[in-house]
Amino acid sequence: MQVKRPTMADIARRAGVSKVAVSYALNGQPGVSETTRAAIKAIAEELGWRPNSAARALTGGRAQAVGLVVRRPARTLGVEPFFMEFISGVETVLAEHAYALMLQMAGDQEQEVEVCRRWWGERRVDGVFLMDLQTEDERVGAVRDIGLPAVAIGPPEVAGGLPAVWSDDGESIHEIVRYLAALGHQRIARVAGPSGLAHTAVRDAALAEACREAGIPGATVVHTDYTGDAGARAARALLISPERPTAIVFDNDIMAVAALSVAQELSLSIPADVSVVAWDESPLTQVVRPTLSAVTRDIAAYGARSATALLALIDGDDVDSIRDGYAHFVPRGSTAPPPAPR
Amino acid sequence: MQVKRPTMADIARRAGVSKVAVSYALNGQPGVSETTRAAIKAIAEELGWRPNSAARALTGGRAQAVGLVVRRPARTLGVEPFFMEFISGVETVLAEHAYALMLQMAGDQEQEVEVCRRWWGERRVDGVFLMDLQTEDERVGAVRDIGLPAVAIGPPEVAGGLPAVWSDDGESIHEIVRYLAALGHQRIARVAGPSGLAHTAVRDAALAEACREAGIPGATVVHTDYTGDAGARAARALLISPERPTAIVFDNDIMAVAALSVAQELSLSIPADVSVVAWDESPLTQVVRPTLSAVTRDIAAYGARSATALLALIDGDDVDSIRDGYAHFVPRGSTAPPPAPR
Repeated sequence: MQVKRPTMADIARRAGVSKVAVSYALNGQPGVSETTRAAIKAIAEELGWRPNSAARALTGGRAQAVGLVVRRPARTLGVEPFFMEFISGVETVLAEHAYALMLQMAGDQEQEVEVCRRWWGERRVDGVFLMDLQTEDERVGAVRDIGLPAVAIGPPEVAGGLPAVWSDDGESIHEIVRYLAALGHQRIARVAGPSGLAHTAVRDAALAEACREAGIPGATVVHTDYTGDAGARAARALLISPERPTAIVFDNDIMAVAALSVAQELSLSIPADVSVVAWDESPLTQVVRPTLSAVTRDIAAYGARSATALLALIDGDDVDSIRDGYAHFVPRGSTAPPPAPR
Repeated sequence: MQVKRPTMADIARRAGVSKVAVSYALNGQPGVSETTRAAIKAIAEELGWRPNSAARALTGGRAQAVGLVVRRPARTLGVEPFFMEFISGVETVLAEHAYALMLQMAGDQEQEVEVCRRWWGERRVDGVFLMDLQTEDERVGAVRDIGLPAVAIGPPEVAGGLPAVWSDDGESIHEIVRYLAALGHQRIARVAGPSGLAHTAVRDAALAEACREAGIPGATVVHTDYTGDAGARAARALLISPERPTAIVFDNDIMAVAALSVAQELSLSIPADVSVVAWDESPLTQVVRPTLSAVTRDIAAYGARSATALLALIDGDDVDSIRDGYAHFVPRGSTAPPPAPR
């Protein structure tokens, strides 16, 4: 297989000029006539010539790429639309600036830090996104030590001074609880994501506060690993408990779908017997029956804003944390007033 | 923000030796004592120094990255687990070889070719995966012209001589039809993916053949864009037609889930009134009720095999097309014998 990329020498040969003339023409330097410059540029275009990123990087240029390390298990990722939607938003901004995205999976935080260190040392990236911030996140300190520009995708409280792009999940929780309380719900439960995640902690705290404000008892919270299986187990345990909740809030969509099946198992009707709320609406929430009430936001726009912040940081700008719009509650078929007391 | 990467000069300063000594030590050249070499390596490790990929690339080395351009719309991607599972399998192999994955979204084939040309011209990648092969695929000729090593993920018939890593979807179709025919089904329909995709065409052809072999009438096929909405529309049209099929095969999972809802709308029971088969089992197929019968295979392993083939190609090996295991039918709750004739 032919593996040769077009060089300035190829262009010079084709144009019948010197390599120096080609270099002048393509680097916008004086020394060639405008006619020659145009001819050389046309030939360069035709041959598919591009400035060599390696040469640019050596002369102090940029890698023209940013990195994103993904730490969730692939099977969870596959079913949750968040990541691909986030990435598609990131890509729209990167494409405008001819930036590429480097993607790598990692098993744990230590591996992720190692990936960042390698990327940066080898000048493969100019900056990274830190996803899924933990309440104790060793990556935050590590990227600072490495000197790698980074934007934290998550609450600023745990971003350790890194610019954070975040959506206030606490606001969403308050909106959900106010809505459920207005319908008359008193016993709310929540099937949550992993307790170590910063945004899970934000939701946990907001839920306790929102219940207090609504004057209803504190909600039971069950932490899971976000999988449908774990969601089904948690929903089943709640629905067979003596103090069955009349409304359950799920931290993603696949767990809420699993809960519909569990209710069917137990001959419970949704929403007549129990209301269900999903988080981050996906196509999934609308293809199931009943359709799922959910909090929803523009995740692609969130990704785009995060990319804009990272590119500004790479350009040496001062970048403040950006509070993105929070996910708003959209009622659909899975929420209703609680059943009359038995 | 500090953005300096450790250089050989930093190591020299810290070690109290010359830059030349550091270069000798880190490049495995003679000229320094083993004690000094060990000390220099320890300091380099501590500072997080890495050989500069730009410098290596200039001297004829590798980009140490491969590329994947994604052309499906983000919202479809999000809900289909295929891509993330495929990528996770790719990553396991790339990680072993310290290769990175470059990801970019593109709107059409032309844009995708442009991305490949740029990546290759700028020495950002050593090779690419071509996903979602079309029956007429301009990318195949384009990557050959560019000279970019590429592995086609799809049937060899449309790979134009590029090494193809493929799963024989025709076999899966035959298995599904034999199973449904054995249950007694005579009227089968299929809600398919886009007709331009090579693997859709393979399934189309195999379905006609399998019906002939089973001695049942040819199946109705409706092509869609893979979204839940399109799947629901197609399922609805089929289920209200005078010659309602007794079994419907869907080309992905989200469309099969949507069909469960449509059946509920129409007060049809699955599987008593109509059987449903999904393609590529995901967690989704098992959290819904009834659970979905589906054809299933190890997508991560498919990704890993594809990455191994691409790295071999980059190393200059002769790489033949690889036929991966095909997706096998797994019966679950959504298939049963057809209803008795009315």
